[in-house]
Amino acid sequence: MSIAYNPSLQCQLPIILALFQGGLLVVFILYVDYDDQTSSLPLSNSTLPKDNQLYEIFPFFKDINVMLFIGLGLMLSFLKLYSFGGVAFNFLIANFSIQWSLVVQGFFNHYEDGRIKLGLENVLNAEFAAVTAMISAGAILGRVSPIQLLILCLLEIPLYVVNDWLIHKYFHIIDVGGTVAIHVFSCYFGLGISRIFYHPELRVGHTKETTTPNSDLLSLVGTLFLWIFWPSFNSVVAKAGNAQHRAVLNTFLALSASTLTTFAMSSLLSKKGQISLVHLQNATLAGGVAIAISADMIITPGGALGLGCLASISCILGFQYLSPLMARRLKVQDQCGIHNLHGLPGIIGTLGSIIAVLFSPIDISDLSLNDDLYYTNGLKEGSSALEALGSNGTWNSRDQAMGQAAALGVTFGISLLGGYMTGLLLKIPCLVHPSYEFYFDDQPYFQIKDISENNWNSKDKHDRNLLMPLKEV
Amino acid sequence: MSIAYNPSLQCQLPIILALFQGGLLVVFILYVDYDDQTSSLPLSNSTLPKDNQLYEIFPFFKDINVMLFIGLGLMLSFLKLYSFGGVAFNFLIANFSIQWSLVVQGFFNHYEDGRIKLGLENVLNAEFAAVTAMISAGAILGRVSPIQLLILCLLEIPLYVVNDWLIHKYFHIIDVGGTVAIHVFSCYFGLGISRIFYHPELRVGHTKETTTPNSDLLSLVGTLFLWIFWPSFNSVVAKAGNAQHRAVLNTFLALSASTLTTFAMSSLLSKKGQISLVHLQNATLAGGVAIAISADMIITPGGALGLGCLASISCILGFQYLSPLMARRLKVQDQCGIHNLHGLPGIIGTLGSIIAVLFSPIDISDLSLNDDLYYTNGLKEGSSALEALGSNGTWNSRDQAMGQAAALGVTFGISLLGGYMTGLLLKIPCLVHPSYEFYFDDQPYFQIKDISENNWNSKDKHDRNLLMPLKEV
Amino acid sequence: MSIAYNPSLQCQLPIILALFQGGLLVVFILYVDYDDQTSSLPLSNSTLPKDNQLYEIFPFFKDINVMLFIGLGLMLSFLKLYSFGGVAFNFLIANFSIQWSLVVQGFFNHYEDGRIKLGLENVLNAEFAAVTAMISAGAILGRVSPIQLLILCLLEIPLYVVNDWLIHKYFHIIDVGGTVAIHVFSCYFGLGISRIFYHPELRVGHTKETTTPNSDLLSLVGTLFLWIFWPSFNSVVAKAGNAQHRAVLNTFLALSASTLTTFAMSSLLSKKGQISLVHLQNATLAGGVAIAISADMIITPGGALGLGCLASISCILGFQYLSPLMARRLKVQDQCGIHNLHGLPGIIGTLGSIIAVLFSPIDISDLSLNDDLYYTNGLKEGSSALEALGSNGTWNSRDQAMGQAAALGVTFGISLLGGYMTGLLLKIPCLVHPSYEFYFDDQPYFQIKDISENNWNSKDKHDRNLLMPLKEV
Repeated sequence: MSIAYNPSLQCQLPIILALFQGGLLVVFILYVDYDDQTSSLPLSNSTLPKDNQLYEIFPFFKDINVMLFIGLGLMLSFLKLYSFGGVAFNFLIANFSIQWSLVVQGFFNHYEDGRIKLGLENVLNAEFAAVTAMISAGAILGRVSPIQLLILCLLEIPLYVVNDWLIHKYFHIIDVGGTVAIHVFSCYFGLGISRIFYHPELRVGHTKETTTPNSDLLSLVGTLFLWIFWPSFNSVVAKAGNAQHRAVLNTFLALSASTLTTFAMSSLLSKKGQISLVHLQNATLAGGVAIAISADMIITPGGALGLGCLASISCILGFQYLSPLMARRLKVQDQCGIHNLHGLPGIIGTLGSIIAVLFSPIDISDLSLNDDLYYTNGLKEGSSALEALGSNGTWNSRDQAMGQAAALGVTFGISLLGGYMTGLLLKIPCLVHPSYEFYFDDQPYFQIKDISENNWNSKDKHDRNLLMPLKEV
Repeated sequence: MSIAYNPSLQCQLPIILALFQGGLLVVFILYVDYDDQTSSLPLSNSTLPKDNQLYEIFPFFKDINVMLFIGLGLMLSFLKLYSFGGVAFNFLIANFSIQWSLVVQGFFNHYEDGRIKLGLENVLNAEFAAVTAMISAGAILGRVSPIQLLILCLLEIPLYVVNDWLIHKYFHIIDVGGTVAIHVFSCYFGLGISRIFYHPELRVGHTKETTTPNSDLLSLVGTLFLWIFWPSFNSVVAKAGNAQHRAVLNTFLALSASTLTTFAMSSLLSKKGQISLVHLQNATLAGGVAIAISADMIITPGGALGLGCLASISCILGFQYLSPLMARRLKVQDQCGIHNLHGLPGIIGTLGSIIAVLFSPIDISDLSLNDDLYYTNGLKEGSSALEALGSNGTWNSRDQAMGQAAALGVTFGISLLGGYMTGLLLKIPCLVHPSYEFYFDDQPYFQIKDISENNWNSKDKHDRNLLMPLKEV
Repeated sequence: MSIAYNPSLQCQLPIILALFQGGLLVVFILYVDYDDQTSSLPLSNSTLPKDNQLYEIFPFFKDINVMLFIGLGLMLSFLKLYSFGGVAFNFLIANFSIQWSLVVQGFFNHYEDGRIKLGLENVLNAEFAAVTAMISAGAILGRVSPIQLLILCLLEIPLYVVNDWLIHKYFHIIDVGGTVAIHVFSCYFGLGISRIFYHPELRVGHTKETTTPNSDLLSLVGTLFLWIFWPSFNSVVAKAGNAQHRAVLNTFLALSASTLTTFAMSSLLSKKGQISLVHLQNATLAGGVAIAISADMIITPGGALGLGCLASISCILGFQYLSPLMARRLKVQDQCGIHNLHGLPGIIGTLGSIIAVLFSPIDISDLSLNDDLYYTNGLKEGSSALEALGSNGTWNSRDQAMGQAAALGVTFGISLLGGYMTGLLLKIPCLVHPSYEFYFDDQPYFQIKDISENNWNSKDKHDRNLLMPLKEV
């Protein structure tokens, strides 16, 4: 039963956000302080201003912000009537998740003497966590309310932090750009939720699930921003010097190969050789996902190209054959095709990293040679792997390969189960959620004119609103 | 009385620009030279190429250019029929103001031995000046001709330079990101002009003062570009090292808090909980304005969050209650709501800086500890405050707090009066200005098709032009 | 005779791309290896990670990528029905050309001991080559199929590499930003092709050769991205330190002068003083093209401004008078006006560089003073000029001036002839190419809805497709 939606959104959104932002403010005042890179305490005498971590991180940080806010936002704005939902809700949950991650990761990783020490590096790590929530949300784009999106973030961020810790601590995963930690995790978390939000009617297509040339073009521009700055994303936590240079180069090569492969595959699979915009918007990025895990390894330039090709092929085949199958058989409706962009290339990339670990010219037990290889995201903080490996030297490349595979499996399980549970919670009747007629529609959430008809007068607009797009079941 | 507009725009725009660009060319040839960072003279032997100021400034400079040209341009393109006016006139007056500032600031600050010494730092400072003109123009967006906008820039830039010098020289203001020097100044200058351009008919709404979902979306993308690069804007002149790092971090936190607060407040204040796009496009940036003045101070991360919340709340309340009131009572029609984004958060930010100065853990008279704090935009050039403070040590935090407050007051007065006088000048009948029917319309200025009707044939277009959108009174 | 187009595009595009990407993969595996900046071999002990070339190149590299993919892509999307053709084919040929250049330039310049050594610098140089193909394609935008575009890239890239080598090796050209090597070359190559694709009916205008306010606005945004990052493009290969700083500053000044001049000239030349969007989208960038060749020379700030003015004037006069003339008399139809943006300003810029070389305060034979001046793109690799000049000292500024002029002439001849021959090849009947009715139309290539009518139902779309937009003659 649908009841009037106005009171509920107007209540729930301000209340949740006020509680959250107010609570966070209290936590920040009580527990958060500048770290030694941002406080006013003088650094040691030998430290020059130029050596501040800012100059190492900030150039990459800005690129990643363009990716998160402009790139992903525009990419998600492909629906004709839900462009603000794409851009603005992405903006909302990004900020919500970043702040939430600062606290969760702060207590988990940066808690010293009763204080969380804060610098730009924390924000960077918080953005990695936020990305997972933003990707997961793609699976149910346009089918949930902002309230539900915020709950999603609240639950996914801590699970991400735990999983990230687990696969680094116990499986010593090497994953500089987050293929497993970010892409695979977010994908299966999102699919887990999507399973709960299965809606049989969607199988015949929703009248509002449509694009315009203009919305498709802006979405493609979003993809281009992601494409351009993906090398920064994959290399930001790589070890400074040659390893970071290699991470940039390998990522660029993989993306470039993905792009050409996408044009070829998309043309091949369409009836008239016409290129699909969905493929362009997604599969051109598949190489960036796949190579994230091995971007700083010695995979050779040819290896990077090959991985980009495979990732793009898997992505397009996923869109063409697997997504319809999953919707039909597994009742998983994947709105943005995150399984094709993040899941399949993530698995391929992990397999690639296993091959690289096994056949890389570097002896993996020789840390003096391969510290390049080990200096990755997780190790930077915990560095338990480094210590473990350094002390006894019994960890060899086969062990590492097993670790990579095990981390993939564990992440798959945790995220899928976590997503499924989260989905159940999001279905709680007291949360605002849109009625089926208002799926893929900005109208319930934003004060905009109705563009579904060529009619702009306000009377018409008010009439439409009587349809009560949001409901509490 | 309206007469044919064609001759006048065609005469005035080329003549003004040719005179200006020609005159500037002469001034540049006679007076401007490369500085020691750009000339071919060898630097001292101990100076490495890497130490060139370029590498310190350029990464920030590029970000600020994206903000000025893309961010602000798109943000101003929200009107359905005036999108080119938003983007292209912003582009025009940015360049006009930058070049003009290079000369004005050059003679004012960089004049040595009969030559102005020019490097990228000058351009950066010129862009700060240009921003004030670009913000002020927002108050009368769509209601004046490009001729009037250029006169506005001609007059505002020198006044900005004088005011900036005054508040640093005599009030020793600490204002690393320009809350007072840029935001407050430009706001009240713009409102002063707007008072003169009061038009009673606008109170019932202009038929062309409307947006489309697409124009609103592009405007929001502009906001996102501003949001992403705002930390660069606030930190570029901060002292290298920890202070600059802190400026980036504080600004990011304030912006993030503003964003969540905006979603909450906007939903709360609308009848149906729907979020206002105007609020999204503006209030999410309010934290960046407010924190500009104290970004490099030790305000604590919690302080940054809190300031962002307050700034956003003030901005939204301004849009909701104060702007209509000002239009009705004070006859100030603020087209883009610059008072809400730059004025109110600017005042709040200045109050915040006073609190920070009074209660900051650093003893403000102890320069060896707080040089972080004092190394700000204005002091970099004049450094009179530093000298004054260093020599006698009688300047304490209460004096500094008074200085901040006095600078705000002085800036308020100068800018409001300056804007009012400028407005009077812009009304001079011999300047081209648009007739009321052609407010918020690109048609008088750009060779575009008329999109106000769903009719594209050229005959119709020519008929419309007979309406004579520009007039000389 | 037109036959069904579906089989052909669906065959040719995947086959060409698969052959190309597959072949390249083999070449990469057999011949390409990391260079000493990206391999895992330890650098010499005295080399710090921070000294890796990545940190020198990457900040510029990212800017140039934004220019190529977003800037140029959006700029080319001005046609109402061909926006995807603009953005996506630009994306396609950029990647195709970059990969192809990596191999061609690799064997030409970086082949050591049977291996091509690969680092980010190679990709940067490959992008310079790719730009030429992307610019040339502008001359025939919308009038050829992607198959033809790929063949164009295949042929133009090697010729660019040869011409670039020639003008540096034998004429010792100083051309830090590629005025001659990139802009002049690509322009006349494109015009050579365009001559072959002359179509008399286009003289009366094609029904689909039209823009919308929205497509014009996005194109202008593309221009702005190009404008903002042009200083990076012109300075990336300048010598680190003062020379690079000067290249950034000079380019910015030239662009700024171009912008103001464009507004003045465009208004002056239109019947009603209205500004042309075509002029805004192009002539504001003319200064960047013209100054590229002398950006790091001691041309004085006034010289940079003046050059920007002249370049913009030439560009606008070209659009107004020369382009129609060339179409009528020379049967060269220049779709995007590349002659006006790249040809005329390129010639003016080269003349400017000759004047600078002749009258620059630096004695050009004194290498200890002017190594700034000589450290340019080509010399970085070949450095034959440096050696030649250093050894005997007989090379004086008149010789250099002659070299600049001769390089312009040689480039003009090679590119025009090369383009003409390439055009003949592109006309080969077996290549897919669009029929006249489907010029300037995305429909044959992309799975999009037909927006040429206000009718979105799929039946209508399929009917249109019966018109067979692509043909094999």
